[in-house]
Amino acid sequence: MPFITIKVMEGKTVEQKREMVDKVTELVSNTWSTPKDRIFIFFEDLRKEDYGKQGMLFIDI
Amino acid sequence: MPFITIKVMEGKTVEQKREMVDKVTELVSNTWSTPKDRIFIFFEDLRKEDYGKQGMLFIDI
Amino acid sequence: MPFITIKVMEGKTVEQKREMVDKVTELVSNTWSTPKDRIFIFFEDLRKEDYGKQGMLFIDI
Amino acid sequence: MPFITIKVMEGKTVEQKREMVDKVTELVSNTWSTPKDRIFIFFEDLRKEDYGKQGMLFIDI
Amino acid sequence: MPFITIKVMEGKTVEQKREMVDKVTELVSNTWSTPKDRIFIFFEDLRKEDYGKQGMLFIDI
Amino acid sequence: MPFITIKVMEGKTVEQKREMVDKVTELVSNTWSTPKDRIFIFFEDLRKEDYGKQGMLFIDI
Repeated sequence: MPFITIKVMEGKTVEQKREMVDKVTELVSNTWSTPKDRIFIFFEDLRKEDYGKQGMLFIDI
Repeated sequence: MPFITIKVMEGKTVEQKREMVDKVTELVSNTWSTPKDRIFIFFEDLRKEDYGKQGMLFIDI
Repeated sequence: MPFITIKVMEGKTVEQKREMVDKVTELVSNTWSTPKDRIFIFFEDLRKEDYGKQGMLFIDI
Repeated sequence: MPFITIKVMEGKTVEQKREMVDKVTELVSNTWSTPKDRIFIFFEDLRKEDYGKQGMLFIDI
Repeated sequence: MPFITIKVMEGKTVEQKREMVDKVTELVSNTWSTPKDRIFIFFEDLRKEDYGKQGMLFIDI
Repeated sequence: MPFITIKVMEGKTVEQKREMVDKVTELVSNTWSTPKDRIFIFFEDLRKEDYGKQGMLFIDI
């Protein structure tokens, strides 16, 4: 029962997430022989003012 | 000092969360003999477009 | 490559987060001899209705 | 489908966790009218050398 | 820069994780046009005594 | 009450973590005027076989 969390910079559309859920589920199901109804996927949007690298927030990069 | 995170589908009201915090704190305090002021509870709402199972987003199920 | 998540009560301004990203990156880089471009920092705002202690939500404390 | 993560200082026995899973599931199921087979619970043990407060590791407190 | 965490029941071999990292990175890179060196993947093993569903620990199911 | 999680490649010694807890607590306390006894810090060691980038596990890089 894999639980997969995908943290990604804000801006991905629902359609992009819909496609990713479909493809990641397919991949994990095939690769690890896991029934699809046991694969959970969560997206977490990273807002640019809440996410930093190299000492700077991404709204400033 | 238990830190408890409850991820749940969006839609729970503040009142439902208020009741859950009270009851879970009571339960953990009694079951593990932990002072209530050392029990932290966090809720994370799962938006239907950010949460998928069986290859589909919950907004599509 | 440290990944640092800072969960804090809602209300910190972008400027406060900007300052924290700068300072924490500097500190971790110096203390653990880590190149700054390998230090990732994430902020998570804790909404008062989603965060409780001592059996109560923070909006009620 | 609540996903509940309980981070707690290392040292809880399997029996203590068994009891907590049973009781928390019962509580959440009753309080939020959620079928038990949709309630997932995860424990994360906090090792004293990986967990600090007030500027000190718990291994030193 | 997607950060992907895969929580899965303990028991996956290094080889199974090696394969999954390769395939998930390929998929995310192609689907979201993301350079591979910006895709981070973390595995978290779920021990059966730390993971429960339906009121029971998986060690008892 | 900031809760700070530091995920870092396995290998940091207890002494390195001790120093980091002290310094990060000091920094956060001063920068955000937060009492030290309200600052919690968690370390999570990333094992090289559980952590990947660019399609490879760090055990293979």
